[in-house]
Amino acid sequence: MTDEPRRLRIALLGAGAVGSQVARLLLTHADELAERAGAPLDLVGIAVRDVDAPREADLPRELLTTDADLLIAGADIVIEVTGGIEPARTRILHALGSGADVVTANKALLATHGREIFDAADQVGATVSYEAAVAGAIPIIRPLRDSLAGDRVQRIMGIVNGTTNYILDRMDREGLDFADVLAEAQRLGYAEADPTADVEGYDAAQKAALLASLAFHTAVPLDAVHREGITAIDAGMIDAARKAGYVIKLLAVCERIAAGAEAPGEAVSVRVYPALVPREHPLASVHGANNAVFVEAEAAGALMFYGAGAGGVQTASAVLGDVVSAARRHLAGGLGVGESTRANLPTVPIGRITTSFQITLEVDDRPGVLATVAGILSDGNVSIATVEQTTSAPADATPEDAIAHLVIGTHTAREQDLSDTVGRLAADAAVRRVVSVLRVEGD
Amino acid sequence: MTDEPRRLRIALLGAGAVGSQVARLLLTHADELAERAGAPLDLVGIAVRDVDAPREADLPRELLTTDADLLIAGADIVIEVTGGIEPARTRILHALGSGADVVTANKALLATHGREIFDAADQVGATVSYEAAVAGAIPIIRPLRDSLAGDRVQRIMGIVNGTTNYILDRMDREGLDFADVLAEAQRLGYAEADPTADVEGYDAAQKAALLASLAFHTAVPLDAVHREGITAIDAGMIDAARKAGYVIKLLAVCERIAAGAEAPGEAVSVRVYPALVPREHPLASVHGANNAVFVEAEAAGALMFYGAGAGGVQTASAVLGDVVSAARRHLAGGLGVGESTRANLPTVPIGRITTSFQITLEVDDRPGVLATVAGILSDGNVSIATVEQTTSAPADATPEDAIAHLVIGTHTAREQDLSDTVGRLAADAAVRRVVSVLRVEGD
Repeated sequence: MTDEPRRLRIALLGAGAVGSQVARLLLTHADELAERAGAPLDLVGIAVRDVDAPREADLPRELLTTDADLLIAGADIVIEVTGGIEPARTRILHALGSGADVVTANKALLATHGREIFDAADQVGATVSYEAAVAGAIPIIRPLRDSLAGDRVQRIMGIVNGTTNYILDRMDREGLDFADVLAEAQRLGYAEADPTADVEGYDAAQKAALLASLAFHTAVPLDAVHREGITAIDAGMIDAARKAGYVIKLLAVCERIAAGAEAPGEAVSVRVYPALVPREHPLASVHGANNAVFVEAEAAGALMFYGAGAGGVQTASAVLGDVVSAARRHLAGGLGVGESTRANLPTVPIGRITTSFQITLEVDDRPGVLATVAGILSDGNVSIATVEQTTSAPADATPEDAIAHLVIGTHTAREQDLSDTVGRLAADAAVRRVVSVLRVEGD
Repeated sequence: MTDEPRRLRIALLGAGAVGSQVARLLLTHADELAERAGAPLDLVGIAVRDVDAPREADLPRELLTTDADLLIAGADIVIEVTGGIEPARTRILHALGSGADVVTANKALLATHGREIFDAADQVGATVSYEAAVAGAIPIIRPLRDSLAGDRVQRIMGIVNGTTNYILDRMDREGLDFADVLAEAQRLGYAEADPTADVEGYDAAQKAALLASLAFHTAVPLDAVHREGITAIDAGMIDAARKAGYVIKLLAVCERIAAGAEAPGEAVSVRVYPALVPREHPLASVHGANNAVFVEAEAAGALMFYGAGAGGVQTASAVLGDVVSAARRHLAGGLGVGESTRANLPTVPIGRITTSFQITLEVDDRPGVLATVAGILSDGNVSIATVEQTTSAPADATPEDAIAHLVIGTHTAREQDLSDTVGRLAADAAVRRVVSVLRVEGD
């Protein structure tokens, strides 16, 4: 390395759980960071809404400012960890416009306004880095972008929301019900007072859009991501899954769909839903609030990246890794590597996807019912792989009360066929209740 | 991106299992690679010993050459996948000397001549990339160097040798003996005819030296790595480990040792040995020939990187990721980021390390023996955490034949104290045999 006399000016937007840890690490690890970046990184200011608000960490009072615009105007690198769409979007565009490189943890912003921001970066040759936006401290953006740059990603299955994994894991390990675990998660601070973004899969869908865009060189809009949450998962479904050798996980699945009869070229499917994962799959042993991203690439084969998905200091680690890389690029000059949309594959609606399913039904316990059910499935192009029937009538039940439980594992079926078939099953007189329909992933 | 009219000249040294796959991917993915690298990557030649030798892949005959020197002289990027020390070392130095960036999978070379090579790269501002040298396709070098650049690695525990993990995993899952599994692994091609490098831990030690050097910014020489292999592990030890809730894995452990009474400053311990890993630890579920690297960092917490540790096409994926990054740097100009030895921490000998242990003894089954054993441990500063005694005398045994098995779990003890104590135990008249002494990691 040469002795570059230059110093880099770092502006930090936000001093919350992540921002305060970023500031602390920038200040306490200054020597190490300077060595790794190739120049001292001077934290020149921290933009906050209220300089007098109480904060987690002890930040130097003189660095705090409410004038984000002034701070940005003089910065080489701008770190945005405020979250939300505005004013984050305007400030990031401002930063790029004045020639700064940007590091952000803002998944919501990138999933909705990513194209605008990446285009703005391309125009000035600056970079927007966002390792911290997906799966907290876990390096996944950089491996997908750089390590696998000479490979072809086929499929990603990610546990990318810690709150829902915590809930499902406790339900699985302790036999608890969703509402009880959610309430406790809220008490412990693992879930927000309004848990919608997590439990309905919105957070995971944003991350899925970012992962798919990167992996498939395609701008995947958020509304092309199929999304289902975990609020319908109950203790009985988890118990049944366990007995069948599965665990239920909220998965973000990003898949390259081969060109076929229905689609003339390659396409991309991006979807978030609770799925049955075989117990021996590496994702099955991701416990608590941890995240993991399982990647299948043409040459590299199966890879998995595992770690803490959230937390202020963990996320700050990912932010600083990006800051060091941005600093090197800023010093070297030249153009940053933009987000590639070279492939620009179409996204396919969920109805066109094929997976295998597990269908659980309550049916009348009388002769002929299994044949009826099997007939409906067969008519709907859904092929049965396994059937398990159990009877659970009380001892004093009349024949009319007798109920059988059918757990049907299907071969790979088209989602649209499956959902039409389930509709016909639900309408059949012999079917008392469709207890659950779950997709199987990772088989 | 600007339309850089430049093309980059890629020289490939070696056309074995990895090299032939690198060539294939460079040729078949040329468009994608050009887009990601920022310029077309022209494979200008493949240096081999014999252009007429039979090869796995169909490589264009006109690219093969025996004149490696001429090929290197005209290259922008040189990929070395021949292995071994010479002529790889001379050729890499030659490549760096003529201004090329180097990508290599050669762990043996870097672990023994790394300083010379990295220094040569620094002098010309070129880069030496070696993602493929450790854990095959798994991105681990780049995450350690870039993603964790703003963090501080405390500890690495890696399963970095696929052959030994395959052997230990089959012994664990099927109750087989070492020799039988090794013989089958050799038949299947998972183990070499001469398995020494794998089963005695030499291969893992080279990788441990590379990981520790990178993680701790310290040039760790290979002879500072403590190394033990798995040839002494038998079915009984694996069975006993299972009953105690552990699995035996060959681990590469790289640890930052805090400054303490014995060492005034921080230091580094690097060691390879079979260790007991708790069944619930993420490393315990790494099966078959897979690799995984578990990293504990100050801010990021625990991370794990998992995937295929070997294989031609998998390793080629890692090589190409490095080639794309090297190409970007080459196009941007400026200086590469060299290997940092800023910290340059001392390495400590194995005797100074503390871990907990599990000691299995066969002792006389008579009163007072447990007291004797406990006394020897206590005198040796080894504190007992758990003791389990089982008696296994045959029904017709005389009292003199009666043997008890003692399995002793220790609290954290100094390695030197432990080994002195085991020596005294072995010499005691009441101890028939020291069955095994295994370290426990990941508790």
